[in-house]
Amino acid sequence: MTAPRPLIAVDWGTSSLRGARLDPHGQVIESREFASGILTVPPGQFEAVFHERFGDWMQAPGALCLISGMAGSRQGWQEAPYCPCPAGFAELGQHLLWLQPQRIALVPGLSFLAADALHTPDVMRGEEVQIFGALQSAGRDSATLVLPGTHSKWVQVHGGRVTQFQTFMTGEVFALMSQHSILGRTLDLNGPFDEAVFLQGIDQSLQPGRVLHHLFSVRTLGLFERLSAAQLPSYLSGLLIGEELRHQAVANGSGPVIVIGNPALTLRYTLALQHLRIPCQSRGAEATWAGLFALSLTC
Amino acid sequence: MTAPRPLIAVDWGTSSLRGARLDPHGQVIESREFASGILTVPPGQFEAVFHERFGDWMQAPGALCLISGMAGSRQGWQEAPYCPCPAGFAELGQHLLWLQPQRIALVPGLSFLAADALHTPDVMRGEEVQIFGALQSAGRDSATLVLPGTHSKWVQVHGGRVTQFQTFMTGEVFALMSQHSILGRTLDLNGPFDEAVFLQGIDQSLQPGRVLHHLFSVRTLGLFERLSAAQLPSYLSGLLIGEELRHQAVANGSGPVIVIGNPALTLRYTLALQHLRIPCQSRGAEATWAGLFALSLTC
Repeated sequence: MTAPRPLIAVDWGTSSLRGARLDPHGQVIESREFASGILTVPPGQFEAVFHERFGDWMQAPGALCLISGMAGSRQGWQEAPYCPCPAGFAELGQHLLWLQPQRIALVPGLSFLAADALHTPDVMRGEEVQIFGALQSAGRDSATLVLPGTHSKWVQVHGGRVTQFQTFMTGEVFALMSQHSILGRTLDLNGPFDEAVFLQGIDQSLQPGRVLHHLFSVRTLGLFERLSAAQLPSYLSGLLIGEELRHQAVANGSGPVIVIGNPALTLRYTLALQHLRIPCQSRGAEATWAGLFALSLTC
Repeated sequence: MTAPRPLIAVDWGTSSLRGARLDPHGQVIESREFASGILTVPPGQFEAVFHERFGDWMQAPGALCLISGMAGSRQGWQEAPYCPCPAGFAELGQHLLWLQPQRIALVPGLSFLAADALHTPDVMRGEEVQIFGALQSAGRDSATLVLPGTHSKWVQVHGGRVTQFQTFMTGEVFALMSQHSILGRTLDLNGPFDEAVFLQGIDQSLQPGRVLHHLFSVRTLGLFERLSAAQLPSYLSGLLIGEELRHQAVANGSGPVIVIGNPALTLRYTLALQHLRIPCQSRGAEATWAGLFALSLTC
């Protein structure tokens, strides 16, 4: 292992750009966040945007920058091919795409082929760094993890390597149903989170009948005035998160599930998992910095 | 039973207004269709729109008009309270809401309370008439029926009465996912229907993993160039219809399923049911006229 260098850790996603400057022990000295997600950057302008945001940090002698997230996708700065599972820190380190030799690198995402008839591919970009960061800070090298979000990831890690994972479009389906479907006409997205109603949604998702049917109950429970407009988003959220967890409750059997994400989402997943008697613990999104720091030690 | 009167049969839905003039034997003499769905009609203007469209037909001596569909909803001409299941022609006839005594009536929809913990309500408006019409022309008084659409209905009829039904938001979820989600960025909705790929979607929906996960494979199969942009809508359609049927394959056990709807949709459902070895037969949307005619004989 080489001596730590000043690390500029960057998470460049679809809708936001976050960066942190770390000291040689991995502590965050300073962080920045911008709305400059990759969708806002014209082709060919990634390097310019990067230097505009972080050029001053890169002046530090020996500075190393690792960038995770969608910046490494086909629509990003440059395509960093997916690293196939099983994969751990060693494989990620070997697959770094160096934009400037030993100075700026894109972290590849992970790919996984399911054991089904179609060998359906699954992919992640950015979450892999959070996973390894959270495991390091939890002092574990095997776990089931969930990273809730627009596209939730459920991940199995054994011996420090991601062995399999599945994506669920839970967050995006929630957004579409609550904003663009007929359900949106009767629900009030400004209603406060209602824990009891959320758990009703979880319970309902476990009933026979499948989610395409249960979604319609958001409309009828409103129509029959059994839930108020302000309660319906909590119910819808419970239905969808419950549908996501229903499968996992069967698959899981390897110690507390680690939930990684922002506080509002980890709260909901923690409530739901506890309701289903699945032990869990949560970690914040700062796992990104821990993961990129640990990865920098392999460079 | 009174002697048949000239019947004006009207199906006034959310997005369209259809009407037919029937002879005393129930044969369609003339039909009309307008884009004047209830969402286009300002409050208080339903009677005016009705007379503008069908006033000439209503001149016939003894003319009787029955109107099914969303015109009887809270957002329609007047609210015709739901008729609770079990319900057949007799119950529908008793619950007609007369706008003009013995001349113009709204047909009520049906409601059903599930046997789950929440006693979740389900509702339909307009499909009940198609169900009874299709059963009459099929010469059956018991069957499982499916009415595919924006909100698909699965219906159990025993002894001429609807005993239970479930709504699935399959069509609406297809529209949202293909037009508004990240999946929409890579699929080409103008691609022709691809039967083999549709059946791949059906098969995939039967794999472990739940629909919120399988939906993401629409993205990855495109990303990995395993399906073309033009094939992806057929695959997505198969995934969602398969998810809807997966449940029914378990519940069904009462003779050929009757599929009622437009040809494009009944084709897909018939293919899917045959693929799952569930016997079925299809009926066109003209079942509406047959149903309203049979109902008029009870007035």
